[in-house]
Order: sequence, then C-alpha cells, then structure tokens
Amino acid sequence: MDLINQANYLVPLCALIAIGFAGISFLKVKREDRGTEVMQKIANAIHLGAMVYLNRQYRAIAVFVIVLTIVLAVGISPLTAACFVLGAVLSATAGYIGMYTATAANVRTTNAARRGIAEAFRVSFASGSVMGMAVVGLGLLGLSLAYLALTYIGLPQHEVLETVTGFGLGASSIALFARVGGGIFTKAADVGADLVGKVEAGIPEDDPRNPAVIADNVGDNVGDVAGMGADLYESYVGSIIASMVLGITAVRTEMYMGLDPLQLIILPMMIAAFGIISAIIGTFFVRTNKTESSAIHMAFNKGLIVAIIAVVLATYFLVTTIVGPDYIGIFFAAVAGLIAGFAIGLITEYYTSYERSPTLSIARSCETGAATNIISGFAKGMESTVFPVLFIATAITIAYHFAGLYGIAIAAVGMLSTLGISLAVDAYGPVADNAGGIAEMSHQEPKVREITDTLDSVGNTTAAIGKGFAIGSAALTALALFSAYTLAVGLELIDVTNPLVFVGMLIGAMLPFIFCALTMTAVGKAAYSVVLEVRRQFKEIAGLMEGKAEPDYAKCIAISTNSALREMIAPGVLAVGAPLLVGYLLGPEALGGLLAGSLVAGFSLAITMANAGGAWDNAKKYIEQGHYGGKGSDAHKAAVVGDTVGDPFKDTSGPAINILLKLMAMVALVFAPLLILV
Amino acid sequence: MDLINQANYLVPLCALIAIGFAGISFLKVKREDRGTEVMQKIANAIHLGAMVYLNRQYRAIAVFVIVLTIVLAVGISPLTAACFVLGAVLSATAGYIGMYTATAANVRTTNAARRGIAEAFRVSFASGSVMGMAVVGLGLLGLSLAYLALTYIGLPQHEVLETVTGFGLGASSIALFARVGGGIFTKAADVGADLVGKVEAGIPEDDPRNPAVIADNVGDNVGDVAGMGADLYESYVGSIIASMVLGITAVRTEMYMGLDPLQLIILPMMIAAFGIISAIIGTFFVRTNKTESSAIHMAFNKGLIVAIIAVVLATYFLVTTIVGPDYIGIFFAAVAGLIAGFAIGLITEYYTSYERSPTLSIARSCETGAATNIISGFAKGMESTVFPVLFIATAITIAYHFAGLYGIAIAAVGMLSTLGISLAVDAYGPVADNAGGIAEMSHQEPKVREITDTLDSVGNTTAAIGKGFAIGSAALTALALFSAYTLAVGLELIDVTNPLVFVGMLIGAMLPFIFCALTMTAVGKAAYSVVLEVRRQFKEIAGLMEGKAEPDYAKCIAISTNSALREMIAPGVLAVGAPLLVGYLLGPEALGGLLAGSLVAGFSLAITMANAGGAWDNAKKYIEQGHYGGKGSDAHKAAVVGDTVGDPFKDTSGPAINILLKLMAMVALVFAPLLILV
Repeated sequence: MDLINQANYLVPLCALIAIGFAGISFLKVKREDRGTEVMQKIANAIHLGAMVYLNRQYRAIAVFVIVLTIVLAVGISPLTAACFVLGAVLSATAGYIGMYTATAANVRTTNAARRGIAEAFRVSFASGSVMGMAVVGLGLLGLSLAYLALTYIGLPQHEVLETVTGFGLGASSIALFARVGGGIFTKAADVGADLVGKVEAGIPEDDPRNPAVIADNVGDNVGDVAGMGADLYESYVGSIIASMVLGITAVRTEMYMGLDPLQLIILPMMIAAFGIISAIIGTFFVRTNKTESSAIHMAFNKGLIVAIIAVVLATYFLVTTIVGPDYIGIFFAAVAGLIAGFAIGLITEYYTSYERSPTLSIARSCETGAATNIISGFAKGMESTVFPVLFIATAITIAYHFAGLYGIAIAAVGMLSTLGISLAVDAYGPVADNAGGIAEMSHQEPKVREITDTLDSVGNTTAAIGKGFAIGSAALTALALFSAYTLAVGLELIDVTNPLVFVGMLIGAMLPFIFCALTMTAVGKAAYSVVLEVRRQFKEIAGLMEGKAEPDYAKCIAISTNSALREMIAPGVLAVGAPLLVGYLLGPEALGGLLAGSLVAGFSLAITMANAGGAWDNAKKYIEQGHYGGKGSDAHKAAVVGDTVGDPFKDTSGPAINILLKLMAMVALVFAPLLILV
Repeated sequence: MDLINQANYLVPLCALIAIGFAGISFLKVKREDRGTEVMQKIANAIHLGAMVYLNRQYRAIAVFVIVLTIVLAVGISPLTAACFVLGAVLSATAGYIGMYTATAANVRTTNAARRGIAEAFRVSFASGSVMGMAVVGLGLLGLSLAYLALTYIGLPQHEVLETVTGFGLGASSIALFARVGGGIFTKAADVGADLVGKVEAGIPEDDPRNPAVIADNVGDNVGDVAGMGADLYESYVGSIIASMVLGITAVRTEMYMGLDPLQLIILPMMIAAFGIISAIIGTFFVRTNKTESSAIHMAFNKGLIVAIIAVVLATYFLVTTIVGPDYIGIFFAAVAGLIAGFAIGLITEYYTSYERSPTLSIARSCETGAATNIISGFAKGMESTVFPVLFIATAITIAYHFAGLYGIAIAAVGMLSTLGISLAVDAYGPVADNAGGIAEMSHQEPKVREITDTLDSVGNTTAAIGKGFAIGSAALTALALFSAYTLAVGLELIDVTNPLVFVGMLIGAMLPFIFCALTMTAVGKAAYSVVLEVRRQFKEIAGLMEGKAEPDYAKCIAISTNSALREMIAPGVLAVGAPLLVGYLLGPEALGGLLAGSLVAGFSLAITMANAGGAWDNAKKYIEQGHYGGKGSDAHKAAVVGDTVGDPFKDTSGPAINILLKLMAMVALVFAPLLILV
C-alpha cells in the first residue's frame, strides 16, 4: 500500500525517464552525418516542408483550441479547460518532436546505409524511439501532474477525475487534426504529385522537378508519424482516464466493495509507468547485424516480446501489491488486452502480407482485371474483420468476467502499456520510406538502395500491424470511455429495446459511413487543388522542366495543408456535433446508443478499409516483383487501380474512424455534466 | 368491433381476391401472341432455363426444409413445423408463379412492342402484377388460415402466435435460397457469359451462340423476380407476425391497458387485407399511351399514390373501428412507415439516377480513371446512408411515441401494405429487360428496340427504388421481429452497458461484413465454374461458333445453379448458426445485442452497397449515351470497371444483407422457447 504514496513521484519519474530516453535517442540520431550536399538539400526541403505543415496546422488547431477552451471554461469549469489546453499542447509537442526527429533522421538513415544495414537500422529505429517515448512520456507526465495538482488543491476525487477528462479531450482534438487532416493531406499530396507528374508531365516518381514531390514525402511523416502518434496518444491517455473514472465507481460494486478508490485510480497510472520502463528495456533487444528483412522482423519481435514479458511481470507485482492478491482478476484483464492487441497485429499482417494467401489471391485476381481486383480485395478486407472482432470480444469477456467494467478499461491500459516500443516500431517505417526516397533522388549506388528497400519493406509490414493495433486499441479505449460516460451521466443501463436507444444506435452506425464518405471526398477535392498548383508551376516557372529552375515546394505544401484543413471542417463538426445534438435532442440514453452503434459498426468498417487498402498495396508490390507479368503488364495496371483505391481507404478514411469513435465518446464524457441537466 | 369477427372471412377473402387478380393478369399476359418463330425459340430457352433453375433450387430447398421441419417438430412443436412448411411452400409457389409468368411475358412484351409502347407496357406490367398479387395473396392467405386453424383447434392465443412464427421462418428459408442463392446465380451467369463470350471469344452480348446467354437472361428473372419477391414476402409476413406477437403483450402495457388482445392481433391482418384492395385499385391507374419514359414513371407514380391514399383512408377506418378512436396513434405509426418507405425509394432514385448530381459526379470521375470512379462511387454510396437512416429513425420515433413497440411493427405493416402494387412495379423491370434482350437476339427493327429500351430504362429506375424499399422494409421488419423476440424470451431489457451484450453487438455488426465477403467470393467461384463450362462447349461442340450447332444452354444453367447452391451453404449456415450459437453460449440478452448490432451496421452497409452499385451502373449508361467520349473511350472503360464491381454489390451482397437481418431475427424468435431454457 506504500506504493500508492510512492506513485506520486514514481509515475512522473517514469514519464521523465521516457522523455530522457527520447532525448538520448534524439542525440544518437543527431550525431550521425547528413551525407552529401545533394542529400542534404533534399532533406532540408522535406524538413522545411514538415515544419511549414506543422506551423499551418498548429495555427488552425490554436483557433479550435481557443474556442473550445472558452466553451469548456464557461460551460464546464475553468480547470477542465486548463486540463484541456495541457492535453492538447503536450500532444502537439509530441507530434512536433516526432516530426522534427523523423525529418532529421531520414537523410541520416540514407547516409548510414552507405556503411551497412546495421547502422541504417539503428538510426531509423532511434528516430522511431524518439516518437514512441515522447508520446508516452509527455502523455503520462501531463496526465499524472494534472491529477496530482488537482488533488493537491483539495478537489474531491470524483471532481478531480471529472476535470482530468479535459486532458483527454485535448488529446482527442489534436488527434482529430493530426489524423484526419493529416490523412487528407498525405493522400492529396500523393495523388496530386502522381497525377500531374507521372501522368501528365511524364516524369518519374520522386523526381525533384515535381513541385509536389516534397509535399508527398512530407505526407509520409504527416500520416505515419504525427497522425499515428496523435491517434495513439489519444488512446493512451483516454484508456488511463477511463480506468481512473471507472475505478472510483467500481468500489461501489460488489466486486470491489471495501477498497479505497485510490487503489484503483493509481493502478492504471502505475501500469503505464512500469510499461514505459518495460518498453525501454525492450528497445535494447532491437538490434541486428544481418541483412535479411526477416532478421529485422525478428529483432522487432524480440524487443516487443521482452517488453511484453516485462510488463506482464510488473503488472502482476502492481496488482497484487497495490490492490491485493484477491484482485488478481485485474491482472488477467490487463493481460487479455495485451494479448488481444498483439493478436490483432498478427492477423493484420496475415491479411496484408504478400507472403500469405489473402494478398496472393488478390494479386492473382489482377490477372482478370481491375474489377476483380477490387472485388476480391474488398471481400478479403471484409473477411478480415472476423478475428479482430473475436479477439476484442474475448478480451472484453475475460476482462469483464474477472474484473468488471473496470477490467475493460484496464484491458485497454494493458494493450497500450508497451506503446513506447510498439509506436517506435511504427514510427520507424516512414523514416525508412523517406530514406529510400532520398536515396533515389540523390542517385545513390544500388547497394545503398537495396538496404533502404529492405528497411522500407519491413516498414510496410510494421505499418500494417500498427494500423491494426491502432484500431484495436481505439475500439477498446472508446468502449472504456463509453462505460465511463454512462457512469458520468448516471445511467443505470442503456436499453436497446427502448426504440430511442435503437434510433441512437442506427444513427451511430451510420456515422462511420458518412465520415468515410466525407474524408474520401475530401482527399479528391484537396488533391485537385494540388493538381492545379503543380500545373501552374510547370507552366509559369521558366526552365523548371529542364532542371534550371527550382519549383516552389513550400507553396504546394501550403496549398495541400490549407485545403486539407478546410476539408476536415465537415468531418470535424460531425464528430463533435453529432453526439451533442443527439444527446440534447434524444437524451443521454440515446447518446449512449449512438456511441455503441458507431463503435460496433465503425470497428468492422475501419478494419475492412485498412486491410483492403494494405492488401491492395502489397498485391501491387508482389506483381512489381515480376509475378503475373510484372511492371507494365495488364495485371500490374489492374493492381495500380486497387492500390490507388486503397490509399484513402487505409491512410485516410480507415484511421479517421479511430478518431471518430474515441472523440465522440470523449465529447460525451466531458460534456456529461451538461447532458444530465437536459 | 363486429369487424373483428368479420375479419375471419374478410382477410382470407381479400387474399383470395389478390390471387384471383393475379390469375386475371396472368390470362391477360397469356392472351398475347408470342411473335415470330425466332422470338419463340429464344423465349422457350429462357423459360425452360428458368424452370431448370427452379427445379434444382426447390430440390435443394426441400432437403433444407425437411431437416428444419424435423428439428422444429422435435425441438419446438409439430404445429410450428407444419406452419413452417406452409410458409415455405406458399413462398415457393409465389416465386414459381412469378417466374413462370415473367418468362412467359418477356417475349409477349417484345411482340407487343411491335404494335406500340402502350401495348408493351400493358403486358409487362400485367406480368409484374401477377408476381405482386401472388406474393401478398398467398402470404396473407396462408398466414390468416394458419392463424384461424390454430385458433379453431383451441390453442390459447399466445401459443397460436408462438406457433405462427413458424410460418415466418418458412418464408425466411425460401428468401435465403431465392435471394442469396439467386443473387449468386444471376451474377455468376452474367460474369461467366461476359468473360468467355465478350472477352475471350469476341462475340457480342446476348449472342445466341454463347452457351451462358440463356443463363444470363434467366438470371435477371432469378434475381429481380424470384429473389425480390421472396425477400418482400418474408418482410410482408414477418411484419404482420411481429405486430401480432407484440399486440398480445401490448395490452399489458399502460398504453393499451384494458383492450382485448384480439383487437391488436386482428388489426395488422386487416390493414394488410385492405392494403391488397388498395393496391388493386392502384393498378387501374397505371396506364399510359405516351412514349416518353417520364410518362411511364408518371403512370407508376399515379398508381402508387392512389394505392397509398386508399390504404391511408382504410387504415384510419380500421384503427378507429377495430381499436377505437382513442388509439389513433396506431394510425400515425402506419402512416409513418408508409411515408418512410416511399421516401427511401425517392432518395434511392436520387442517388442512382443519372439525371441527378451524385451519379453525374461519379460519371465525371471516370475521366480520371477506374480508381477515382471506384472511390467516388463508394463515397457516394456511403453518403447515401444518411437520409434512409434518418427516415427510418423518424418513423421509429413517431411510431413508438404514438403507439409504443406495437407501433413500430405496425409501421412496418404500413410500409408494406401497398406491396401488391409496389412489387408489381418492381417485377415489371426484368420482364422489360428480357424483352429488350429478345428484341436484340431476334433482330427486331429499331422502332421495337427503342420501345423496349425505354421500358428497360424505366425498369432500371424502379429496380433501384425497389432495392431501397426492400432494405428499408427489411430493417423495420427485423426491428419488429427483434422486439417480438425480446418479449418471447421474456427480456425486460437489453442493456448495452452489460459487456456481454456489447460483445453480442460487436459480433452482430461484423456479420453483415462477413456475409458480404462470403457472397462476393461465392460469385467469383460460381462464375469460374460457368467460365470452364462455356470454354468446354466452345471447344467440344463442333460448328458452334459458325452457328451450325446449338450450345447446351441447360448445362450452363444447371452448373451455375449447382455452384450457386453450393456456394450459399456457408452464408446460410452463418445466418442460421450465428444467432443460435451466440444465444447458447452468451445467453438471450447477448443474442439481442447481436441482432441489434447486425441490424444497425447491416442497414448502412446494405444501402452503401446497393446505391454504389446502382450509381456505377447508371454512370456507365450515361457515358454510353455519348458523354465523356462515349462507348469505347477511356472514361467508358473506367465506368465498366465500376459497373462490374457494382454488380455483386447491388445484386448479390447488398440484398443478401436484408435476408441476414430478418432471418437471424426470425431464428431467434422461433427458437426463443429453447433459449429460455439455456
């Protein structure tokens, strides 16, 4: 029980260790040489572009945050508003650090690849570690300090927790911009660059004469570093907050009768804190000198498994020490979440890897044309929902059976406990991808490109796994937030046989569909504005095509940023407005129905879109390796159609659903005090 | 109140009038001449093919029905088993009559077109009327006789209703085979014919030398006559049964306290009976002498509106007379359902007609290739979920507000009350389509083909509207059945905050996705077996390509039938097995969650697939009219990809979801007595 008091400094300390580890990893990256002048020039443009993007995005976010801060300060409480600002600022900071590092590490990875794969791998993974550790470090530091400060000023515990939800809403707000806006940006730049560059002007991909090429490279970081980071930051703090809120009410249930609420409130923060240490230990096992991609996979898996084992042991210790050996069920809940997250990652890899039958059958269907490719990819995407649903369902059932509603939130905390390392693995991908682009643009010798290609191909797999993990953790977090919401508005139950609840569910299930429709349409519109700008530059800048003049990269980035931000207004308003409107018009119980409906429908839809997209991408890559006629064949053309359709599926609309689910639940939770009054 | 006793003969009488009207319409069709020898030869082949298909399908159904009859007789009661057989046999009979008539009317429509559009329209609509009236007539006759017979032998009312649910399960079983199996058949034949005929052998569409061409024409009838008919037959009897079951328990609620349950049980049957008369009156207003497609639309709308007005007046009379003027809320519920069904039809037309912006924007996106066509069609399909969801949500809210749970079932009854005429409009489409095919194959003069083309284009619109209506009525019926189920298992509530219920919902929401995946994959596999057979015939039958020998049409039909039936085993088992498994493992409340989850997710998914498919189809037609380069242009090629993807979307997987939702609810309802014991 002493551990509860020690938590007051242990949790912030572990968070600081994560930040320190991020700093050390950053220095490791910085120490590397930036290579030749050409390499540096390209890297500078990407780096600059990323900063242009972030500046513009943070300006837009600032407006949004200021408005919402005022609403919260007036409508809920000034302290909630303060927590909201803190949550948002720290998430933005983590994103900034991650983007800054990734765009510093890409060229250094290329340069290190000239010495060998072990070096290049070390640099790119160090960059990923900066992002991973910054997210968990800043997230846990901010959350624990907010909690301690609010407790210190003497607020009663339930008000502390009510106020701390503001921190989660801050995280959700940044996630909305970073993931949805970023998702639109990255695909708009990608499509815009391809459409005018490859199709109209006939210049190759990654050609420096293309004004949108830097925007395209920036986009990789925007989507997979900043977007993924903000998404998981939101899940991370959301799951901890939800379990804290559920903890305080759990002691009123039979299962936890007689416990001090503090025991259940402190536990999730401590699991997260020990998870950070476990993740750091795990990173030391991620190293290899071998050149095969399987060796890199092995290195990642070794690191992940060490971290998982460490956190399992730590959780066992924490549960038995903080709550007591009678409550070992909480431990089972955490482990169930952890295993479900890992299993969803594996099944995602199975469905999207071109070494497995689903993607191979999609590649084969390209032989009969684009239509059969689309149909079979779509069918496989839909099929791939079965196991993730069963895994999550099993984790929920186990967690609830052994530890009640509180257990479900703890399962989410458990799933995300090793986020420090799993996000590092994720954020390594875009660095390797960029490194390959720089190698290409700076005309490195084949040996270097082979190394970056190997790293990149591993990155594609880890990206797919990361997407599955992000969806799974989003669903579990949203469910935990949903449970916290029902307690916050004092709903004893949400009865589906009440037709108003059913109406809420019906509307809720429709929202992921309309959210997808809006984001896909947004990509099209934003891409079109990039196309216009690229065409303009080709026409107006004399000597551009001959390589005598420089294109205006920044303009393309600014335009895609602006149109992405403009196009995300509608989905953003929908995500914030729908729960408030339904809650106001149909009442808190119908809002509960809406959240549940969106959650169950959105989960399967998000998996379908992510996995169909990933499988189409890799089916194309498989054909490009020379199968079914290879590059330029009819099968390849069919595969390109699938890949193009899959791009917004997997990088914009699919991940955007994660945000929708969590944001709506978070909005409902934060505005619960107002909904009770309706 | 006298009307309640009179209902005993009034309801069967109205049902018999429908059957009589169907008979007269059939004679009107039969009276027409079958045209030239060539026309007759083609028509004979289609007719024969349809019968081959039905024979083979009914054999498979017989096995299924016998097994389920034994299960029901042993597990539930022999009387339930008897009702089950009756429901199945009557649905099969309606399908047989509809198919027989449609394949007799197609060639007569072609021949009538040689005299003018008014004649051709009259014949094809008469054929549709046969199907429409056979479905409502046989459905209501069987249901009312079963109800009366069970009452007559002295069963208590609640047992009568419990037993009569077997009739609904019979309807669901046929619907499963006709809609899912039929959906696989029609697209397998279509794709198989196109792939070898058009692509490999280079012969035009609808060429008599293609061994699969007759299967393709049979398929139109299989999907849009037999499939649609069985689907709506299921909704029709399902909604009436659900409202009867809800009626008996409604008198225990405050709203209906003091009423005789008989009042609420008889009312839905009487609304249906008067609906039949209204529909018949409506059909007399469906006629035109004008040649524009708008005039035909106008004729249909006139008939529908007359029928709607008539049934609204009748329902007002029935509610005030049978239940009493204090219960006018029931009338509002019926009207809300009726309007929602009509409104969903209109919005479906808006999204799929090439005279409106959604489909036009999809056509425009074909200019930039197949991928943008797929993305924009998919986005529009998802967008199109908004209004149908809001319409249904509004209908549910109004119905519940004014008439409780009973009102929701009555809304479904109201929506389906004019089915006699709306199904007639629907079933007219494939006849017109076939007539066009026969005109093409028998080389009629351009004037004739112009007429059949006009009729066909109207048929495409009515088919889209019919699909929207089918989905809407399926959702409302499934909801009513779901409510009946909760009462049948004695659930006071289904609490979403109970994680087991949430798990049920999560699994339920996944089922429509996996159902779509299975049916889409099934189309691919079945099409492949058709391809092999067509190739074999081209190779082995000497003189086939020169037109000197006849292909073996029947073999192609048999093969596509067999493989369609084989491929539907997995989805069929899933639809029947999933609710039983979840009910057994997780309990009746979780099963309720499963039904609700599948309903809300399936509704949006079904609309997405149906409307995306319809819009792609019409975007292609729009381009073929000469826009964006017309036939043969790159835009056209892109449009063809969309159309091919859309085929299984709109004709197989989308409609199959209707069946999944209703069948699972029906299985839950029928097996409720067993689930209570678990």
